[in-house]
Amino acid sequence: MAESITARLDDPETAITDGAQKIRWAREQMPILDALRDQLAADRPFDGEVIGMAMHVEATTAVLVETLVAGGAEVAITGCNPLSTQDDVSAALDDTDGVTSYAKRGLEDDAYYAAIDAVLDHDPTITIDDGADLVFRIHEHRPELIDSIKGGCEETTTGVHRLRAMADDDALEYPMFAVNDTPMKRLFDNVHGTGEASLVSIALTTNCSIAGKTVVVAGFGQCGRGVARKADGMDADVIVTEVDPRPALEAYMDGFRVMPMVEAAEEGDLFVTTTGNRDVITPEAFERMADGAILANAGHFDVEIDLEGLEAMATETVDARDGVTGYVLPDGRQVNVLADGRLVNLATPVAEGHPVEVMDQSFAIQAVGAREIATDADLDAGVHAIPDALDREVAEIKLDAEGVAIDALTDDQREYMDDWQHGT
Amino acid sequence: MAESITARLDDPETAITDGAQKIRWAREQMPILDALRDQLAADRPFDGEVIGMAMHVEATTAVLVETLVAGGAEVAITGCNPLSTQDDVSAALDDTDGVTSYAKRGLEDDAYYAAIDAVLDHDPTITIDDGADLVFRIHEHRPELIDSIKGGCEETTTGVHRLRAMADDDALEYPMFAVNDTPMKRLFDNVHGTGEASLVSIALTTNCSIAGKTVVVAGFGQCGRGVARKADGMDADVIVTEVDPRPALEAYMDGFRVMPMVEAAEEGDLFVTTTGNRDVITPEAFERMADGAILANAGHFDVEIDLEGLEAMATETVDARDGVTGYVLPDGRQVNVLADGRLVNLATPVAEGHPVEVMDQSFAIQAVGAREIATDADLDAGVHAIPDALDREVAEIKLDAEGVAIDALTDDQREYMDDWQHGT
Amino acid sequence: MAESITARLDDPETAITDGAQKIRWAREQMPILDALRDQLAADRPFDGEVIGMAMHVEATTAVLVETLVAGGAEVAITGCNPLSTQDDVSAALDDTDGVTSYAKRGLEDDAYYAAIDAVLDHDPTITIDDGADLVFRIHEHRPELIDSIKGGCEETTTGVHRLRAMADDDALEYPMFAVNDTPMKRLFDNVHGTGEASLVSIALTTNCSIAGKTVVVAGFGQCGRGVARKADGMDADVIVTEVDPRPALEAYMDGFRVMPMVEAAEEGDLFVTTTGNRDVITPEAFERMADGAILANAGHFDVEIDLEGLEAMATETVDARDGVTGYVLPDGRQVNVLADGRLVNLATPVAEGHPVEVMDQSFAIQAVGAREIATDADLDAGVHAIPDALDREVAEIKLDAEGVAIDALTDDQREYMDDWQHGT
Amino acid sequence: MAESITARLDDPETAITDGAQKIRWAREQMPILDALRDQLAADRPFDGEVIGMAMHVEATTAVLVETLVAGGAEVAITGCNPLSTQDDVSAALDDTDGVTSYAKRGLEDDAYYAAIDAVLDHDPTITIDDGADLVFRIHEHRPELIDSIKGGCEETTTGVHRLRAMADDDALEYPMFAVNDTPMKRLFDNVHGTGEASLVSIALTTNCSIAGKTVVVAGFGQCGRGVARKADGMDADVIVTEVDPRPALEAYMDGFRVMPMVEAAEEGDLFVTTTGNRDVITPEAFERMADGAILANAGHFDVEIDLEGLEAMATETVDARDGVTGYVLPDGRQVNVLADGRLVNLATPVAEGHPVEVMDQSFAIQAVGAREIATDADLDAGVHAIPDALDREVAEIKLDAEGVAIDALTDDQREYMDDWQHGT
Repeated sequence: MAESITARLDDPETAITDGAQKIRWAREQMPILDALRDQLAADRPFDGEVIGMAMHVEATTAVLVETLVAGGAEVAITGCNPLSTQDDVSAALDDTDGVTSYAKRGLEDDAYYAAIDAVLDHDPTITIDDGADLVFRIHEHRPELIDSIKGGCEETTTGVHRLRAMADDDALEYPMFAVNDTPMKRLFDNVHGTGEASLVSIALTTNCSIAGKTVVVAGFGQCGRGVARKADGMDADVIVTEVDPRPALEAYMDGFRVMPMVEAAEEGDLFVTTTGNRDVITPEAFERMADGAILANAGHFDVEIDLEGLEAMATETVDARDGVTGYVLPDGRQVNVLADGRLVNLATPVAEGHPVEVMDQSFAIQAVGAREIATDADLDAGVHAIPDALDREVAEIKLDAEGVAIDALTDDQREYMDDWQHGT
Repeated sequence: MAESITARLDDPETAITDGAQKIRWAREQMPILDALRDQLAADRPFDGEVIGMAMHVEATTAVLVETLVAGGAEVAITGCNPLSTQDDVSAALDDTDGVTSYAKRGLEDDAYYAAIDAVLDHDPTITIDDGADLVFRIHEHRPELIDSIKGGCEETTTGVHRLRAMADDDALEYPMFAVNDTPMKRLFDNVHGTGEASLVSIALTTNCSIAGKTVVVAGFGQCGRGVARKADGMDADVIVTEVDPRPALEAYMDGFRVMPMVEAAEEGDLFVTTTGNRDVITPEAFERMADGAILANAGHFDVEIDLEGLEAMATETVDARDGVTGYVLPDGRQVNVLADGRLVNLATPVAEGHPVEVMDQSFAIQAVGAREIATDADLDAGVHAIPDALDREVAEIKLDAEGVAIDALTDDQREYMDDWQHGT
Repeated sequence: MAESITARLDDPETAITDGAQKIRWAREQMPILDALRDQLAADRPFDGEVIGMAMHVEATTAVLVETLVAGGAEVAITGCNPLSTQDDVSAALDDTDGVTSYAKRGLEDDAYYAAIDAVLDHDPTITIDDGADLVFRIHEHRPELIDSIKGGCEETTTGVHRLRAMADDDALEYPMFAVNDTPMKRLFDNVHGTGEASLVSIALTTNCSIAGKTVVVAGFGQCGRGVARKADGMDADVIVTEVDPRPALEAYMDGFRVMPMVEAAEEGDLFVTTTGNRDVITPEAFERMADGAILANAGHFDVEIDLEGLEAMATETVDARDGVTGYVLPDGRQVNVLADGRLVNLATPVAEGHPVEVMDQSFAIQAVGAREIATDADLDAGVHAIPDALDREVAEIKLDAEGVAIDALTDDQREYMDDWQHGT
Repeated sequence: MAESITARLDDPETAITDGAQKIRWAREQMPILDALRDQLAADRPFDGEVIGMAMHVEATTAVLVETLVAGGAEVAITGCNPLSTQDDVSAALDDTDGVTSYAKRGLEDDAYYAAIDAVLDHDPTITIDDGADLVFRIHEHRPELIDSIKGGCEETTTGVHRLRAMADDDALEYPMFAVNDTPMKRLFDNVHGTGEASLVSIALTTNCSIAGKTVVVAGFGQCGRGVARKADGMDADVIVTEVDPRPALEAYMDGFRVMPMVEAAEEGDLFVTTTGNRDVITPEAFERMADGAILANAGHFDVEIDLEGLEAMATETVDARDGVTGYVLPDGRQVNVLADGRLVNLATPVAEGHPVEVMDQSFAIQAVGAREIATDADLDAGVHAIPDALDREVAEIKLDAEGVAIDALTDDQREYMDDWQHGT
């Protein structure tokens, strides 16, 4: 069994202190979890529950863990990606009553899965995943745990899609909430989280100006329109590429130019992919790019920019700047790729992931989802949408925390809407 | 039986000439219908069909009529609102081969319904409505027509809701397409049509500047965000009111202030309602408004501003300007209401309704919807969504007409999306 | 001697009533003049003064006249353009105590100058011009008046340039304030007045959407950047053309595309000229435009679009729509020119000129300029800038009227600024 | 005499390699200097000149130095601030033929001035300053150098003001170009450089979202409007504070709210000062701020936020996050100050200063300014504006480098403009 992180660090005390500072800052920026913590501490819905988690272990996740613990949970946590763990945050978590953290940055495959197994050794009754690693490991290797598991929550698009595939094969044996798909995550995390954080990370990683750049945004889904709109707001000239005519037309009516990628390649200074698909920027496009073109991916996997194709074209690669690899083409042009084509708002040296306020919303959905699992005995096995009332509850808490009041429907208005919907 | 409009005009020749000019201008701005006209003229799907229509009879509608006629239809048309008919356009239509128009501005109730009946006397096989007047008249008074009717299309939210109510009661006896709900209408007509046309109409009706105004937008649905975003883009300070916390939070994260209407009343210079509900601005709000406040409705019915309440408070009303009524309150403050609270982008003296490009999209959906009805024998009675392929077809025609090319998925990309959606 | 307008109207009573309504509306939207009226009524700086005016006689001008009269002036006024007079406003003014109006729409040349002479027959001691007609007439034909004239104000760029030319030749014999050049006019009238009013007028004159259009703005001075910024805010794709590399680069860094007009001609849907120069859009550009291109001028004279060149190319012209002339080219393409190339925010059938708030600022500068002339005996003959204190006074009144408070420098801050400016 | 930096480093080889990488990246993003380098290499205007420089020694400065060397200059350089030197860049420069660098990070006062003296020991014939340190040192301690100095360039507002004060006292004995004041620097460096870099630095230093924040911008000069406009474009709600009614009114008409700082204090989440003045945010404001308020300075000196006042109010300070100091007030609220109130786009751990494209423009002005000094024998002692032709030349080179062509005035247009300006 894996040891918890504290035992594996050279200087755990310093790590705990540093981690605690990071967590404190995050906590102060997460008013929804703050309000939920008070509520959960009063209601103790998690008394007797063991929550197993496999998440990116950084400060905002730690605030979620604290919130669950305040509600009575025992938490065992590890990472969901070998490189995303912040050891000091992990140590500070491990130092918290009721929490054991096995997450450590840079674990090799064996150790990574040993950490997952160590979490499962706590016999979780609820699971919280970012990528469905816990759910898979349980179904494949630890099916004996399933009987005592009430349910789980999954954070990401990718994880939800994997769970749906399991459910389609009748292979998912406990209920899972698709946190990713609920409006409070989808409409904010993508537009504001990816949109802002990607551009900010690109600006500081390159020290280049967004203003005056021709920015080519591949894809006009929620992420793409976030990037496009904010780049426009920062005084860039924005071009959108799409494969679906409807979002293409929306982009066009929003005042963006729309064209195929190979044409955009000739005009762009900066390219940001947000499609969720592979090979969105290909050798045919690299051929047409100006010297110094900058390429970044904001769309989950590192397959959107065809790096193999680029490497095959290049005569050499250079460390152009921290987080920037320059591919020198035979005619001397250099194409600059950020963060090796991985998520630019997470994987450059200066990147910080999504803004903390966005994580507050996502993780608040996690917390109320877990609460629902702990308290509602009637959920079937399978993938469930977050109930609308929970999504709404989180929105209300956030508005309240920001001091924003809104109107309420009067009885007359409610009646009018009902009447009207049924004909007059 | 009602006479067609030409016979009822004093100077039909001039009317025809004037109407033809308006139609020609509209036609030139409607590239989707233009492309569809060529296609329909080649395929003649409407050969043998009689299309009965009750729509706002103005230039863009005329272009739709022409398009249907090009496809082989005989068309009989009347208005869907006694005040929205443009007599010259109606006359020019009536003068067109294959078209009879009964629409005349300012008809009294009896004459209005006589015109509808005159349309039905043509024994339509397809109906096109804006408000479901034809469908209702047929079901209530002319049920014998139903057997030979293949189906119909409905343009508006209101009409669709009425049809849904009929369908819920199993009272809708032929298939109807809900044109209103399809993305190509909903995402453009509301955001860009209502958004832009309302502000432009307000600006010219009042001769006031949008820049520097505090604009209060009631409702943050598609219409509301169109108005809010464009007012922001025209340099206004925008406040949003809402009753649902999720759109309220979206507005807040977009940088708008959000507050209850009674608070917004104290800050606003210009108020635009877009909620679809009644009594959105009430005496409690009027009480708090500054002298000179301007109120406009962009949300369908004239019930959003509580005009009865306002009248009850006022000591007198003044014709402040064409299209503007000033309500003088006991303390001397004057609240100015545009177009008597009716749709500000239609009902002020300078208003022109939605921009023609937006109507091109909506009416193209009407045309392909009618084509589907003419050619698909298998539609059940009831309300149907526009098939996705038709919506997409219209988007493709529009992009093509604008000279915009987009990317296509490669086989590898298609496979990747499929694989990924089913787990890797 | 010309008769005042009331005597020349068929139905003066109705005209007076209608004009009074328009003036009342304008007055309510002009808080700066409102505040100045109170101040001038208390101080009576114009007691004994006769103010001769040649201005566009419409509602906002009438409010300026009222303000001057409140300060003790006798006013004689006529138009500065034969087509811009609103006869009802002129009649209402003429019906006001202390005012004689000779302005009438559609006067022939002789009558136009007779009206100017009639104004001069009142022996003005102060002149207020829009285009310098009074000043010229006085210097050329009525030099005997000069001795008793204290000074004058000129509203426009054009007028100021003509006065500067006179001054350069030592031919200007009394002091004139260049109202046009002061920040309170220049920064607002151009950016917000021309910017917003032009786009609003274009939208309603054509019934076309600004959203989704490629808008080519010729010139990136204050007018051009107003048009460009607001078109961008209304979801257009904006291209800028320039002849000076600095504003060209500013446009480029603001995210607009910049290119020569002949290239822009191939991309644009809508062209707006704001340069102040002639032949900005030429046959070479018309040749490249798409069918249906729309052309409008927002830059003073009707010389920016080379209409002679266009007419020479065209096989026919059509009345495409009220306020829109279509020029049909030999290959069938049609180029549509708004308002015959005259100011699009003034000269289309729906246009209303600048928003009233903008006129409030400009005319408040006129009022304080006239007050300065009346009370400061020491002004030399020649063209003078509006003293900074007056410009600032008007800004303060406006902020006050809008309920906006600002900070004041503390003594320490003032000292710091002074110290720092003189080195530390 | 100070040793050049290479001799003082532990590992000069690594430093040189690292510095060269940084310089290469910067060079690739600086097309104006790139073009000037070719021109200067051909013309060799600096043959025989020794250029003494005291600048922030980082990568973009190094590209300027290279450009001057290419033109024939010998360059001796040191820092203009003890903390802004990047030792690796300094080493790489020192390793360049024709360059000696004395700049080293963290020098104590004596060593700092010794480095300046070492530069002067090279007997410069041209000086380039950022803060006027060289000019002062020469006039106070090395007046014997003045005779052989042809002139100099000064980069900053501060330096220019100090030079003007000297000139006013007839104490400036050689010609100096005020690089700071020229349009190509002022209009871009402030709006786009400070505007974008400040917000990007704040976002990553705090990991907070700009979207949804109420951002209070103190001052609406060029820097302030850059910050305000871009924060608005990133979906913040923006409030502006001002002491001058004109820019206050401009901000208001641009749709920003305007109010005194003590009122804004109650509404703001993030405060950015850009005034150039002291004590812009004071204890009276701190008293009213919400818990967690974030304060940053983008306005040169660290006096805009009254940190002494804040410290006096606080019960403790905490290291809230790298680059963020939390001041805990007696009632438990915490006010967070970034970078100790120093320039937030330079002084936080992640900050990179202005985007490199902005520095390209500023330093291109330096280069053409130095070229003018080397080649124009007729400049008087005193402060000079950059000649308009040079400013324009740099704009033209930039547009050319970006592939942007613009129109040229025709002879007819030139004549029209001339005629018109002299009356018609």
